[in-house]
Amino acid sequence: MSTDPIDQTARAPWLDLPADHPFGLGTLPYGVFSTEGTAPRVGVRIGDQVLDAGACAEQAGMESGEVWLAPCLNPFLAQGRPAWDAARAWLVEVLTNDSLRDCVEPHLLDLEDVRLHLPVEVADYVDFYASEHHATNVGRIFRPDSEPLTPNWKHLPIGYHGRAGTVVVSGTDVVRPTGQRKAPTETAPTFGPSIRLDIEAELGFVVGAATELGRRVSVDDADDHLFGVVLLNDWSARDLQAWEYVPLGPFLGKSFATSISAWVVPLAALAGARLPLPAQDPQPLPYLLGDGTPWGLDVHYEVELNGTVVARPEYRDLYWSPAQMLAHLTVNGASVRPGDLFGSGTISGTDRGTRGSFLELSWNGTEPIELADGSTRSFLEDGDTVVIRGWAPGPDGTRIGLGEVRGTIIPAR
Amino acid sequence: MSTDPIDQTARAPWLDLPADHPFGLGTLPYGVFSTEGTAPRVGVRIGDQVLDAGACAEQAGMESGEVWLAPCLNPFLAQGRPAWDAARAWLVEVLTNDSLRDCVEPHLLDLEDVRLHLPVEVADYVDFYASEHHATNVGRIFRPDSEPLTPNWKHLPIGYHGRAGTVVVSGTDVVRPTGQRKAPTETAPTFGPSIRLDIEAELGFVVGAATELGRRVSVDDADDHLFGVVLLNDWSARDLQAWEYVPLGPFLGKSFATSISAWVVPLAALAGARLPLPAQDPQPLPYLLGDGTPWGLDVHYEVELNGTVVARPEYRDLYWSPAQMLAHLTVNGASVRPGDLFGSGTISGTDRGTRGSFLELSWNGTEPIELADGSTRSFLEDGDTVVIRGWAPGPDGTRIGLGEVRGTIIPAR
Repeated sequence: MSTDPIDQTARAPWLDLPADHPFGLGTLPYGVFSTEGTAPRVGVRIGDQVLDAGACAEQAGMESGEVWLAPCLNPFLAQGRPAWDAARAWLVEVLTNDSLRDCVEPHLLDLEDVRLHLPVEVADYVDFYASEHHATNVGRIFRPDSEPLTPNWKHLPIGYHGRAGTVVVSGTDVVRPTGQRKAPTETAPTFGPSIRLDIEAELGFVVGAATELGRRVSVDDADDHLFGVVLLNDWSARDLQAWEYVPLGPFLGKSFATSISAWVVPLAALAGARLPLPAQDPQPLPYLLGDGTPWGLDVHYEVELNGTVVARPEYRDLYWSPAQMLAHLTVNGASVRPGDLFGSGTISGTDRGTRGSFLELSWNGTEPIELADGSTRSFLEDGDTVVIRGWAPGPDGTRIGLGEVRGTIIPAR
Repeated sequence: MSTDPIDQTARAPWLDLPADHPFGLGTLPYGVFSTEGTAPRVGVRIGDQVLDAGACAEQAGMESGEVWLAPCLNPFLAQGRPAWDAARAWLVEVLTNDSLRDCVEPHLLDLEDVRLHLPVEVADYVDFYASEHHATNVGRIFRPDSEPLTPNWKHLPIGYHGRAGTVVVSGTDVVRPTGQRKAPTETAPTFGPSIRLDIEAELGFVVGAATELGRRVSVDDADDHLFGVVLLNDWSARDLQAWEYVPLGPFLGKSFATSISAWVVPLAALAGARLPLPAQDPQPLPYLLGDGTPWGLDVHYEVELNGTVVARPEYRDLYWSPAQMLAHLTVNGASVRPGDLFGSGTISGTDRGTRGSFLELSWNGTEPIELADGSTRSFLEDGDTVVIRGWAPGPDGTRIGLGEVRGTIIPAR
């Protein structure tokens, strides 16, 4: 079991933070913010405030805080686990030690006064397909006459590379993509805005410490390389995807936008949320097992469309662990870099209410979803706003907040 | 027809360069080099020398040459077509004007005295599949009972994202990748070093000027965004690829290494090598056509294994044009960034001797290739060295050199 370097039950007396705040001292996520006239730099969220981490570190004489003056988390990520743990301990110290209040307080800004930016300059982005229920649903919908899972599915975490340059921060509008589609009944493709625009509720893993080309990361060493998590919405144009994806996989059906939450929650904050994986049968090859117990995460999701909660996926349902995904990604010698991001794939359970995409929720459009305003949806319309929220258990019944990832569809150009 | 901003027949009197040198004044490719104790920076190849471009520009008082002090081409790429054209004209001026000789000569280094680095910090890497003959060969080999081309193949340039972080410069050793494979006759996958390690001879296109998310690049505007070309070897582990690639495409079978030549040849240098595309039937959708004539490139290839030339692919055989690939890549609103790289896909013709992969050359191992030393190969063995060379026609029967991309296989770790 991994442990958090800090005591998650510590209190910050002068911060006046409710004990059950999802961004208490047990969370301390990192993001990138700016204010009017100042350059983007690293901030740490505490309650509904943002600590200007680099400025605070500078005033406190903490030299290694220089990396927080960068406009992205990458230099901090590159430092590796010991530095991440030390930073986390330092943050708790300055936020709880009364004698440091004068040093800290000037560097706390109200969340509503800052602008949040993409926290990470994404190096390579990989999307996995780690939910058995999601893969089964998709197989049943698209290949009703075959086995829903392909023969390789339970032997390796299937994944593919996505477009790193179109990963955007929560709140960024999503332009409806345009492209080719062809219904099975049509003889030639047609061109136009996507008519089957969808979401995929995922968890994203942010990689920190780099590796050398030709070296693998074992399952047991994954903690040295996995820095933290974001909520991830892998926007998907199902009509473009269906026509293009054979034989080389999804491309334009996905590459127009991938949204992530503004706050990267350190994996350390989720130490108490680790769970055993569901049973894996057949047993994976040794490189996917390691010496410890494969772990999943107890992260709860809420998917909201225009104010109506339409699904509550559970990350614990996933078949492959994050450490297995990283070990697989590097088993061929592929190197990782600070800022690499990989998504879990859509998180879906067995019940309709736990499915993480509209493709599954509406069962390919045959069972539209009712919203609170009386309208129905199979896929997204222009003006629709999707918000995905997540949280994990913290100590004493509190929550570790993962925040939200939000996006509104604007018409095709 | 695109034109080169310079006169490719200009001569540099004091450089003493043979008129038929493939790196004459008509080529002028950009790379990144360092010398013992100096930092990597941009160089321009002329003959068998490298011009320290930033230092020369500084001495000549050319302010915009500052971008050449960077350790990669990306800042220069970001400046866009007018700056690229101006730089090319400036280089010819300083290399041909006798009165500037004292200003230039101290900044010319012998190629053998410099170390070459990856010229571009690769942002996103996409690999296309634009050769009809290659796609047909692969279809016949892997899906002998189906139509060799999938139904979408002649409607869109099929592509997928690859791993940007494992693009390496020519000369980098390639560690044989390890992973899962399963023969159709086996009941479960096995694990080990790849036993079907292959190459793919491609042309790589380096994107310069960025676009905004949600905006497309039309076929007619492609020249504003395409900076230049590199030779590209998309190393492929066929056994890993065959087991993993359904349904989401190639992943670990490709992501362990992609090699590119050290010199990026500006597209301007290839203005005289543009050719009409082979006929496209059915006619592609309008966004893939534009107002001009779709153009291909007259680039000749030579694939050498351990000193034996095993293939001579011709880029002119490709079905989709580079401008069509870029227009397709962005038609869904996906943005591009300076340093984006896309590969053409394996370049293969109709004859055996023009196939750009060992999979095709050995017809899936059934017709091994004979080397000059009497040995045979279906796929690559440890210690094998592959060199891919390329050139295009220049003025008056000369050649525009594309240099080489070279790699040696070292044993799995």
